[in-house]
Amino acid sequence: MQRVGVHKILCSGPGDISGALTLIDAGEIDPADIVAVMGKTEGNGCVNDFTREYATRAWCHALAPRLDMTADDVEHRIAFVMSGGTEGVLSPHFTVFTRKVTDDTHDGAPRLAIGIAFTRAFLPEELGTTVQVKETAQAVKEAMAEAGIASTADVHFVQVKCPLLTSTKIADALSRGQTPVAHETYESMGASRAASALGVAVATGEIAESAVSNESINADWSLFSGVASASAGIEIDYNVVIVMGMSRASDSPYVIDHGVMDDAIDADSLRACLQRLDIDPGMGRAALAERIVNVFGKAEASPDGKVRGVRHTMLNDSDINSTRHARAAVGAVVASVVGQSAVYVSGGAEHQGPAGGGPFAVVARV
Amino acid sequence: MQRVGVHKILCSGPGDISGALTLIDAGEIDPADIVAVMGKTEGNGCVNDFTREYATRAWCHALAPRLDMTADDVEHRIAFVMSGGTEGVLSPHFTVFTRKVTDDTHDGAPRLAIGIAFTRAFLPEELGTTVQVKETAQAVKEAMAEAGIASTADVHFVQVKCPLLTSTKIADALSRGQTPVAHETYESMGASRAASALGVAVATGEIAESAVSNESINADWSLFSGVASASAGIEIDYNVVIVMGMSRASDSPYVIDHGVMDDAIDADSLRACLQRLDIDPGMGRAALAERIVNVFGKAEASPDGKVRGVRHTMLNDSDINSTRHARAAVGAVVASVVGQSAVYVSGGAEHQGPAGGGPFAVVARV
Amino acid sequence: MQRVGVHKILCSGPGDISGALTLIDAGEIDPADIVAVMGKTEGNGCVNDFTREYATRAWCHALAPRLDMTADDVEHRIAFVMSGGTEGVLSPHFTVFTRKVTDDTHDGAPRLAIGIAFTRAFLPEELGTTVQVKETAQAVKEAMAEAGIASTADVHFVQVKCPLLTSTKIADALSRGQTPVAHETYESMGASRAASALGVAVATGEIAESAVSNESINADWSLFSGVASASAGIEIDYNVVIVMGMSRASDSPYVIDHGVMDDAIDADSLRACLQRLDIDPGMGRAALAERIVNVFGKAEASPDGKVRGVRHTMLNDSDINSTRHARAAVGAVVASVVGQSAVYVSGGAEHQGPAGGGPFAVVARV
Amino acid sequence: MQRVGVHKILCSGPGDISGALTLIDAGEIDPADIVAVMGKTEGNGCVNDFTREYATRAWCHALAPRLDMTADDVEHRIAFVMSGGTEGVLSPHFTVFTRKVTDDTHDGAPRLAIGIAFTRAFLPEELGTTVQVKETAQAVKEAMAEAGIASTADVHFVQVKCPLLTSTKIADALSRGQTPVAHETYESMGASRAASALGVAVATGEIAESAVSNESINADWSLFSGVASASAGIEIDYNVVIVMGMSRASDSPYVIDHGVMDDAIDADSLRACLQRLDIDPGMGRAALAERIVNVFGKAEASPDGKVRGVRHTMLNDSDINSTRHARAAVGAVVASVVGQSAVYVSGGAEHQGPAGGGPFAVVARV
Repeated sequence: MQRVGVHKILCSGPGDISGALTLIDAGEIDPADIVAVMGKTEGNGCVNDFTREYATRAWCHALAPRLDMTADDVEHRIAFVMSGGTEGVLSPHFTVFTRKVTDDTHDGAPRLAIGIAFTRAFLPEELGTTVQVKETAQAVKEAMAEAGIASTADVHFVQVKCPLLTSTKIADALSRGQTPVAHETYESMGASRAASALGVAVATGEIAESAVSNESINADWSLFSGVASASAGIEIDYNVVIVMGMSRASDSPYVIDHGVMDDAIDADSLRACLQRLDIDPGMGRAALAERIVNVFGKAEASPDGKVRGVRHTMLNDSDINSTRHARAAVGAVVASVVGQSAVYVSGGAEHQGPAGGGPFAVVARV
Repeated sequence: MQRVGVHKILCSGPGDISGALTLIDAGEIDPADIVAVMGKTEGNGCVNDFTREYATRAWCHALAPRLDMTADDVEHRIAFVMSGGTEGVLSPHFTVFTRKVTDDTHDGAPRLAIGIAFTRAFLPEELGTTVQVKETAQAVKEAMAEAGIASTADVHFVQVKCPLLTSTKIADALSRGQTPVAHETYESMGASRAASALGVAVATGEIAESAVSNESINADWSLFSGVASASAGIEIDYNVVIVMGMSRASDSPYVIDHGVMDDAIDADSLRACLQRLDIDPGMGRAALAERIVNVFGKAEASPDGKVRGVRHTMLNDSDINSTRHARAAVGAVVASVVGQSAVYVSGGAEHQGPAGGGPFAVVARV
Repeated sequence: MQRVGVHKILCSGPGDISGALTLIDAGEIDPADIVAVMGKTEGNGCVNDFTREYATRAWCHALAPRLDMTADDVEHRIAFVMSGGTEGVLSPHFTVFTRKVTDDTHDGAPRLAIGIAFTRAFLPEELGTTVQVKETAQAVKEAMAEAGIASTADVHFVQVKCPLLTSTKIADALSRGQTPVAHETYESMGASRAASALGVAVATGEIAESAVSNESINADWSLFSGVASASAGIEIDYNVVIVMGMSRASDSPYVIDHGVMDDAIDADSLRACLQRLDIDPGMGRAALAERIVNVFGKAEASPDGKVRGVRHTMLNDSDINSTRHARAAVGAVVASVVGQSAVYVSGGAEHQGPAGGGPFAVVARV
Repeated sequence: MQRVGVHKILCSGPGDISGALTLIDAGEIDPADIVAVMGKTEGNGCVNDFTREYATRAWCHALAPRLDMTADDVEHRIAFVMSGGTEGVLSPHFTVFTRKVTDDTHDGAPRLAIGIAFTRAFLPEELGTTVQVKETAQAVKEAMAEAGIASTADVHFVQVKCPLLTSTKIADALSRGQTPVAHETYESMGASRAASALGVAVATGEIAESAVSNESINADWSLFSGVASASAGIEIDYNVVIVMGMSRASDSPYVIDHGVMDDAIDADSLRACLQRLDIDPGMGRAALAERIVNVFGKAEASPDGKVRGVRHTMLNDSDINSTRHARAAVGAVVASVVGQSAVYVSGGAEHQGPAGGGPFAVVARV
């Protein structure tokens, strides 16, 4: 029987691991049990956001002596997914997922389970292509198996961290006569997220692998996953996959459910998901805080330039990238429903939910 | 008996007046009746936002031949308040207020009334001081009288457009041996909004004039107005005041009510206001759209750096000013409640509602 | 015999035409003689820079009564090229070019001549393609003929203002089953500038028309013009072309020469050009100011991510677009050589000079 | 006899220490000799620039095992000064200063010497006040003594790294009834730099201590140092001081001289300094590269809003902070003179050189 622990920890900056160390020193977190850390860090969430890399390194250096290994080895043992960008009310924080195998018996009701997997490193020219789709799909299946999630219907959230193209990587590909999918770094983030999300959709059976071609990536918005969340980061060369779902092999004190926001202001879908988890959205801030641990979701500026038929300006803004606008908007809508601002809303939802909308999952205490 | 008309008009850019001209050509708006235009334009809403000035000039040039006067004269006849910044889902638009004196009889229930007034031009060193407070209070009283609003209890929204300090104006003050309230242009916008809001609070009796000193402006957050909305713009030297409220001297087909958001994610206050207007927040998008014309509100990053006790990063962000973050967040929350994104959410709520929160008003069809 | 006048006019904002009106009222500029206005305006120079459109409209409204025509007719009579972005020391200003046909005799030495032409409006899907290349080349030849410039060797600067793709235009093309060259507005600016510059190169004979294919646009950097300067703007649907060069048919009191900066810090090329114009770069600020009227040039972040073999960060910066960085850098280098900061340095030099460098022209008093 | 080594090391990101480790592994740098590291990192250089802190931590973690101490102890042993912001052509890099006491004899000509010192930690309310001035002056004298620099005339560059006010620190001061010098974080950076620079000026005798009051800090621009360079960073609570100059007690293979740029485009002063070091500015790129190691300098937007009497827009830009504009401009001017873009140009030159200008120092091989 596995037991998953979930700890949401606030921080004063991307390098502040003090909250986690306090919990470790108090015995509430056993470092050896940590399988994944999902963080929101206060960078721009785009190409030159070094807060993701900095936070990951800070975690690795902090855990290294406690796990008796090097910082580099820690980085390959635990799935670190840092999503940059805390626009608007969003508050930087880390969510630590632990997993322990126990001999406990369990009443049999499904509970939160988690599994992780890594793909091989990608060549620059493979990003944003069907190669990335297939490798990601394979990793999702491995992570499901590790989590003990029997059916794709029990998968509620698949987080992928994927690489992006820097100008160095683009030059490398070109020097070898290869054509990268994008010549701009910011644009490559979207391509990498798109292929990763389609990989999730293939693994969950939401779409057939044969339905995906290089031409449909970031173009055919009818293809999407309702449980995928992909973030691109400059610090990795491979995909990291975290699968969360419900399993009878788990006796965690947590449950998870998911939904899809139709557009950036669709608070109704989130309220409906809370109700499926037996949480009354109107029961007051204190009561909500006791049940809801975190919301994990994706945001994007609707690619047709409109929200419910009315023009938005996010895609024409050359001062603030559209992912930043979308995180600020969706982050505030989510926070207004659940009453807390330390929620995980990540930008760029290509093939993650319908165009302009995005999937989300709620992790709650039973 | 006065009758106030309200027309919300979408646009494709700050210089696009075509929507208004279509209504004028169709006879739905008589240019001679226009008393105020409140616009959201797609600039940065800060110092170097020329979309406000551009939109105002475009309106003046478009109306000049239709009012048989020069563009400059139009600018002094109609109260133009352009609020820059359409971050997140916010959609650029103009709200045109018309007023016509009629011989119609009326059933006696109060309806939407509007009045406008202007202060004298301010010297650079007067901005952000009690001079601006007093002149604004006087203008509010004039506008109330013009609107036929008998009691301050019937005032639901007071929009003020106020000047800011450019480096040229700062240098001018310094050259005359005067000390402007701020040496940075962006900072001066907050000072000017603060004094203007306190002027409203004095006029409505929310605070005593004797309670305001130069030291309390932008410092003592216990002093605030629940109906004030102030926007600073580079294009004017004086304050423009628009008072909206309910009056038995009006038989408009519109009503107005207001509330105060306690913080940036306080959707509950907005829902409560809708219910006071006999609008069920859950009655569906189409039904909401039929009743709600627009929401006018203010947003700000909480000056203590926290939302409900949890850190936000808006005040430490040197890439995106905090007013932009706050508009994106509050704009999305408002849009998620009323189901429309062409709402008037303006940034910088110093002394406008409590710290971190802001006043709002809903204009609805009866 | 034609006589070209050149007036550089500072301004306090994009809508400030007062400097020009003063010169017109004083009789120094005859509005009927104005053929072109090239401005630097203080927007971001990218997609949502409305200062270009605002400045153009301000000029048109100001000149309309003085030319006894509508503002719209003024816009089609005079070539307005507004380049957004005054990063670093760059100072917003307008350069007004006038042309008058006179009966004066002339000593025969070539002098500054100018001609303008317009292409037809482009469909969204034509931007950044060989269609735009060919139409631009044709317009350049028309403008050369109008200027009385006999040989392409006498062409020293060709300014093109070209359209960009907004999300509306992209959606329009897609709705008709057409594929626009870019799906991002910012990216489309580079494509439009690239095709325009290659059109100039074809017209001047710097490259053969057969050498250009859709695949080589924004890809084969060996193809470039040493006299082309292209700026993209949201406000037009067609290309505006201004050709400047030397002609014996002109007795202007001005001369022009050009050069190419090899990279963003190549001050030597500019100094060499000054010497060809018999201007000693070390002769002191006052003497330089008497001879040099303006420098017109292009800037770009080197697409290989390096300046003289050393990494720059302009292409990986998601907060500030690379065109803004490049204008700040090259603008300061040019200003440091000529001793004045009101120079016309425009961003985005695709196929305009070698990769990472850019063409420039110096207009000087004889 | 002391011998100072200077190594300029390029990097691929703020966390890339590989270049230094290569030199250490090759025996070219003895980690025990490192006294100071001055880096340019690719953040925004303003409040929320975590690349400074990240780079410092990366250095500390990399050196810890090589110095057999903890990372925290490394941070207190070596003076790390990371200046954020590589706008325009500026290239991220680190300059490592080593110092070794030797028994070598020396010909007696003065050579580059270096010394460092730290102040005590400051309370939030002490930043930007005469307290910071005095403590800094004291530290400068300590560092001079450590460097063996006999006369203030031999001091050519004093680098200070100083704290800034975050919203947390501001709240802390206010909660104790204290008034911090600024209520905005970005503004506090200027105040801290200003007091630090005046501390240098007091130590070098450029101004009398009695000439400085709290009122003159960031106000009386007639008070300044021609050798001070101050950078503010979120990662420290105290001032770090590095003094560089010429000393007969040094037999380093390096020399240093300094100058002051009158304004942002004053390339002449830099050329004159090169000539004083017997370096011909026109001797070609390769020859310049052999002599010049690095240029250390300060940049700022002229506070009167003008460069040589002509308006700039840096102070009114709410999208890009003026320090970023100034670094882009001055960095490019410096690079265009010395032919290399990995130069140390730091933003915010309050009381560092005259208003709008800034001090610089050139370190060259003999």
